[in-house]
Amino acid sequence: MINGEKVLDHPIRWAMVGGGRGSQIGYIHRSAALRDRSFELVAGAFDINPERGKDFGIQLGVAPERCYPDYKTMLMEEAKRSPEDRIEAVTIAVPNGLHYAVCKAVLEAGFHAVCEKPLCFTTEQAEELVHLADSKGLVVGVTYGYSGHQLIEQARQMVLHGDLGEIRLIKMQFPFGAYNTAVEETNAAARWRMDPAKAGPSFVLGDVGTHPLFLAETMVPDFEIESLMCTTKSFIPTRKLEDNAFVIMNLKGGAQATCWASAINCGALHGQKVRIVGSKASVEWYDERPNQLTYEIEGEPVRILERGGAYLYPSARAEDRISGGHTEGLFDAWSNLYRRFAIAMEKANKGEKADFWYPDVHAGAEGVKWVEKCVESAKKGAVWVKY
Amino acid sequence: MINGEKVLDHPIRWAMVGGGRGSQIGYIHRSAALRDRSFELVAGAFDINPERGKDFGIQLGVAPERCYPDYKTMLMEEAKRSPEDRIEAVTIAVPNGLHYAVCKAVLEAGFHAVCEKPLCFTTEQAEELVHLADSKGLVVGVTYGYSGHQLIEQARQMVLHGDLGEIRLIKMQFPFGAYNTAVEETNAAARWRMDPAKAGPSFVLGDVGTHPLFLAETMVPDFEIESLMCTTKSFIPTRKLEDNAFVIMNLKGGAQATCWASAINCGALHGQKVRIVGSKASVEWYDERPNQLTYEIEGEPVRILERGGAYLYPSARAEDRISGGHTEGLFDAWSNLYRRFAIAMEKANKGEKADFWYPDVHAGAEGVKWVEKCVESAKKGAVWVKY
Amino acid sequence: MINGEKVLDHPIRWAMVGGGRGSQIGYIHRSAALRDRSFELVAGAFDINPERGKDFGIQLGVAPERCYPDYKTMLMEEAKRSPEDRIEAVTIAVPNGLHYAVCKAVLEAGFHAVCEKPLCFTTEQAEELVHLADSKGLVVGVTYGYSGHQLIEQARQMVLHGDLGEIRLIKMQFPFGAYNTAVEETNAAARWRMDPAKAGPSFVLGDVGTHPLFLAETMVPDFEIESLMCTTKSFIPTRKLEDNAFVIMNLKGGAQATCWASAINCGALHGQKVRIVGSKASVEWYDERPNQLTYEIEGEPVRILERGGAYLYPSARAEDRISGGHTEGLFDAWSNLYRRFAIAMEKANKGEKADFWYPDVHAGAEGVKWVEKCVESAKKGAVWVKY
Amino acid sequence: MINGEKVLDHPIRWAMVGGGRGSQIGYIHRSAALRDRSFELVAGAFDINPERGKDFGIQLGVAPERCYPDYKTMLMEEAKRSPEDRIEAVTIAVPNGLHYAVCKAVLEAGFHAVCEKPLCFTTEQAEELVHLADSKGLVVGVTYGYSGHQLIEQARQMVLHGDLGEIRLIKMQFPFGAYNTAVEETNAAARWRMDPAKAGPSFVLGDVGTHPLFLAETMVPDFEIESLMCTTKSFIPTRKLEDNAFVIMNLKGGAQATCWASAINCGALHGQKVRIVGSKASVEWYDERPNQLTYEIEGEPVRILERGGAYLYPSARAEDRISGGHTEGLFDAWSNLYRRFAIAMEKANKGEKADFWYPDVHAGAEGVKWVEKCVESAKKGAVWVKY
Repeated sequence: MINGEKVLDHPIRWAMVGGGRGSQIGYIHRSAALRDRSFELVAGAFDINPERGKDFGIQLGVAPERCYPDYKTMLMEEAKRSPEDRIEAVTIAVPNGLHYAVCKAVLEAGFHAVCEKPLCFTTEQAEELVHLADSKGLVVGVTYGYSGHQLIEQARQMVLHGDLGEIRLIKMQFPFGAYNTAVEETNAAARWRMDPAKAGPSFVLGDVGTHPLFLAETMVPDFEIESLMCTTKSFIPTRKLEDNAFVIMNLKGGAQATCWASAINCGALHGQKVRIVGSKASVEWYDERPNQLTYEIEGEPVRILERGGAYLYPSARAEDRISGGHTEGLFDAWSNLYRRFAIAMEKANKGEKADFWYPDVHAGAEGVKWVEKCVESAKKGAVWVKY
Repeated sequence: MINGEKVLDHPIRWAMVGGGRGSQIGYIHRSAALRDRSFELVAGAFDINPERGKDFGIQLGVAPERCYPDYKTMLMEEAKRSPEDRIEAVTIAVPNGLHYAVCKAVLEAGFHAVCEKPLCFTTEQAEELVHLADSKGLVVGVTYGYSGHQLIEQARQMVLHGDLGEIRLIKMQFPFGAYNTAVEETNAAARWRMDPAKAGPSFVLGDVGTHPLFLAETMVPDFEIESLMCTTKSFIPTRKLEDNAFVIMNLKGGAQATCWASAINCGALHGQKVRIVGSKASVEWYDERPNQLTYEIEGEPVRILERGGAYLYPSARAEDRISGGHTEGLFDAWSNLYRRFAIAMEKANKGEKADFWYPDVHAGAEGVKWVEKCVESAKKGAVWVKY
Repeated sequence: MINGEKVLDHPIRWAMVGGGRGSQIGYIHRSAALRDRSFELVAGAFDINPERGKDFGIQLGVAPERCYPDYKTMLMEEAKRSPEDRIEAVTIAVPNGLHYAVCKAVLEAGFHAVCEKPLCFTTEQAEELVHLADSKGLVVGVTYGYSGHQLIEQARQMVLHGDLGEIRLIKMQFPFGAYNTAVEETNAAARWRMDPAKAGPSFVLGDVGTHPLFLAETMVPDFEIESLMCTTKSFIPTRKLEDNAFVIMNLKGGAQATCWASAINCGALHGQKVRIVGSKASVEWYDERPNQLTYEIEGEPVRILERGGAYLYPSARAEDRISGGHTEGLFDAWSNLYRRFAIAMEKANKGEKADFWYPDVHAGAEGVKWVEKCVESAKKGAVWVKY
Repeated sequence: MINGEKVLDHPIRWAMVGGGRGSQIGYIHRSAALRDRSFELVAGAFDINPERGKDFGIQLGVAPERCYPDYKTMLMEEAKRSPEDRIEAVTIAVPNGLHYAVCKAVLEAGFHAVCEKPLCFTTEQAEELVHLADSKGLVVGVTYGYSGHQLIEQARQMVLHGDLGEIRLIKMQFPFGAYNTAVEETNAAARWRMDPAKAGPSFVLGDVGTHPLFLAETMVPDFEIESLMCTTKSFIPTRKLEDNAFVIMNLKGGAQATCWASAINCGALHGQKVRIVGSKASVEWYDERPNQLTYEIEGEPVRILERGGAYLYPSARAEDRISGGHTEGLFDAWSNLYRRFAIAMEKANKGEKADFWYPDVHAGAEGVKWVEKCVESAKKGAVWVKY
């Protein structure tokens, strides 16, 4: 159980690129990183407007001279500081189209990175980042935030322990409803998501579909796609990117998987669910009730597993912050991930590898490839493509 | 509200083929038909064992001389009786492989029919039955029993009244779990479902998939498939027919639909759900909670509509047998259908057409075609086929 | 499993008093009694208007000469018929204020009875009916209809088998919302319930409170009240009878029970729930989801038991009419009770006792006493009274 | 929406008494207070073992010289520091029996306080603390943590705006199950709760019952008890304090309320629910699904309100940290309270009053009085007592 005990030698010295005043995503990154003193915010290039960024950084307690006008300056200046003083890690909370460039620069400067998904836009870029991180022994954490919920780990352990038997089906969905009309015409925050230049080659596949994909990869460690087909559609005709997608995947070993990603599923807030069907039992997780995991052994009553339950696998209880019954939410899940990032970074600093999973550069690359393959299939007329 | 009031001139004089002693399906047919005196059981060929069938018929109150050894004898002998006395309708509760032959004989003999699904195995057969029924002005009721639940009518009215806006997505599923192992090796009742000679060209598509298909066709009156793709799999390798199928459909007018039919979805009893996503709102119905309909207007709180609610469309309340809050179940839903069959038959006897919907011979034919097309796609490698 | 097999030597010859044209309660009595040919409707005094009653009886298939103008005539005339021909049982579906008189007359005439709850208005009357029934060896079935749901039997078996440990708490409630305004001013069907002369000494305690009371008595066979306190209130000031009541009971053996009965619980259709808390586990049943029973072993995941499950006690599966997953509703539950009534009556005719439970004259008397004691407590200022 | 924007002139300078290494409650206090820089931890007397406490404080970033051996020393030493430097507020996270003494000392030293519930053990003590706080213009926040969930504010606004009509019933419960056996015999953390010297005059009434009480007081601003009755019981016979209690309350104005507090409700994690029944509609909130509020207008479909919904009252959206659909949990609710405490403290420092509600010293005193009155009733034989 996490209760503020010292885990790290020291909080990781940390900077942000983007995530300035008024940014929702910046807020959740800071909430998670600063929780439990996993990280200490010591520098930043928070805003494209340097003055506003500096003002905001100072409010956050950053020294004025370490509030930089842009990430390039920051990386250059921080590199000049003594090793004991300079930043160790950088969170990248800039528009999607800049993820690749900033992440590459951070890694080249020798710092660990935490990057919003998507990691980048093409497999070629992703492979470059994977190579950079691996060859330099640097950590790249990708914020697939839902995966920090403890019951995701429980599902993984159940699969690994054979509680479900042989895995046969994986059903994923993240079909929300809020973009059922052309909200982007009046809402600037929505507009960039429909712009290929800023959002990449896809809207819903990349924006929401990769979330349950990573959950499934986590729950089913040998998840490996052999081929897939994807049909996409823009129900709002002015959209250049799809607002609904269905994907069917054949997995190595014979299992099948499906994914439904949507922005036009009226009435659903998230609707993100992952169901794993095995030969003996199924589990199902729903992100709007993240403290519960449904466990259905064929022929027995459905069981509702609860976060914090004494019957869970130990690793699914290790990150509890409060006993079961009390709710933990998305901020707690993110805090779990940032905590793992910090531990992994400290280990990496010592030349060691993490002995636990977290959404890393490979997971980020996998998401990029999946979107790419889905788009390829859809463009060819929703045909099967090799993966 | 139904409360035993006289609706028909007289109960329809009725016979059964099959559905004898110990038959589950025979029991639900009789429970539904005899409810409210919609039908009166006056004859039958209940069993392949004539003695056993006669004994059973007598127990049910059928005159001994009208307990026939087989359906051919029954049709021949009943035709000899006076028009006021002879049977008017026949329910066909025999193995799937005989549906076509018996139904054809019943229609040719000039009687109305009620037939278990599937109506037959091929579109060619189905078209023949459609032609026979239509040309003779005979009613064929197909027991898509779930469609008798009143909230299905509510959903239909909501679609027709534009409450959902333009229909975009139709999500169907009937994924049960009870055949997650090779139960057919020890359970005779399961065995025929996996035998192409007895079950037809498909297991789960035909056995369960056509149920939500008909619900969707009912809810969305202009549901019309343009093309579809289907991937099937037998997770139990000894099976000759699929135990899991995913279908994606492009509909005329631009909507899309999906269907998941499965027998290996561990832990699910039925899992039958239909979700209709419109441009303004969605509705969702779940057959294990048939007295509720979820209504989700985008941007508003989710509403749970209840059977019997004063806010429902009048036609969705017409078949209530008891006020809301009290549960009605599947037997009540079947009773609703049989009641509509009886009224439709009485009208047909007078040369009139029913001014209400019920699962008729066209619905039965549609199910046959859908299975055929799904199987065609799956066999070709899960490719798109024109419908 | 019930599937129409012959259980009785012959259907019980049956009459109704009340329950005529347009009566909801008459309809559910007939639906349940005639199901599976447990009873055969051969006589009746259906209506205070003899002509209308006769017309209705004929429509139901009753011989004209056995459609009587009133119950006294019916009892007298039927007694004159031969023992093989005359009625064996009478259902009493008249206003509450007449239950006692009609039931007494039926028993005195030597016929079995089925009576709507409340059996009568006072303990003195109830004891008289108990004595009559017991001394004459006659069956009185009281239609606590919810108790016919199979999962009530499951809960009872779990308690009897010690699955819950020692019983500590019994929480009952039936708080509906439909009378949150003075609906009786415009709705005649509601008016009599608020009239002490017609409804008896109580509104909600008697109208709905005794339902979960009987469920609790059934689930916990040694349920015995030692003392109770009750506070009542009429939130609609013009009402002469309470529209809300809270009851706390001390049981023999040390357990405690509570009951909430209400007609002003806005938004609830029924809200009828019974929760049994034992030293090891709890079960909870909700009448709007009657096919499920929640089973909560302390320290383990919550389990949802489903009607039809192979893991249920055999007696909880004996009355299934269709396999699990499919829903059964209130009509099926009533059918179960009427079936038990019929079997008990046939046994009684042979001088035997039923070896199964059903809501009998003692259960009816217990409900009357409970309401009486609750009203006594409330009138004295919500103080504790001995039971 | 909260996203890290500057709200306070500066973070409140803050100390803790208790809540040292391994303390669960200390952890949640710190998580909440340090969130968004509402508070800054600058001093503490964390542990009865001064060395351990100092070591822990240093780990938390507190200056060694401000890690004090005990609270008296801390209050004395801090008072000597300059007004710009010394602590402004103290959180009291010590065993219940010490709350009164420490809180009194903190207030007498002129500091604001945040105190775990119960504020103290007797009304006499409570009145003293109320007088102290009010006369000195000091804030006392009491951590009824659930009240920080945004939908509690929504329910309050709905009541204030008349959405429910006139309030008639308030149903409260917090019946958990984890103490269904004598866990205190082996679990030291449980033992003090059953010891009157350490826990006060009650176990479940004070430990859990006051939580829904405060929620109800918050939701229904004119909640005022006129009289109450309470029956308590120790189902584990060795317990000196009750492990189950039922309370019925008559409120001024004619409404009634009930509360069920329990530690032996097998299978329930928390089971904390509050239902408010008005003349037009009801709302219900369940602490294990805190992001939803059920809204039931009589005669309309049940609606599920969601945190973050655009249809909520503005004040119920002001503390969102992330958009609806994403879950917020108990840590976020506590953070909301601590944020309000900080703002109230800053205002108090300027001689202003908070123009918003938070669980203050009066709420703390009310909880103490309620437990006292409940215990009085129970001891007298579960009779009605004036409030």
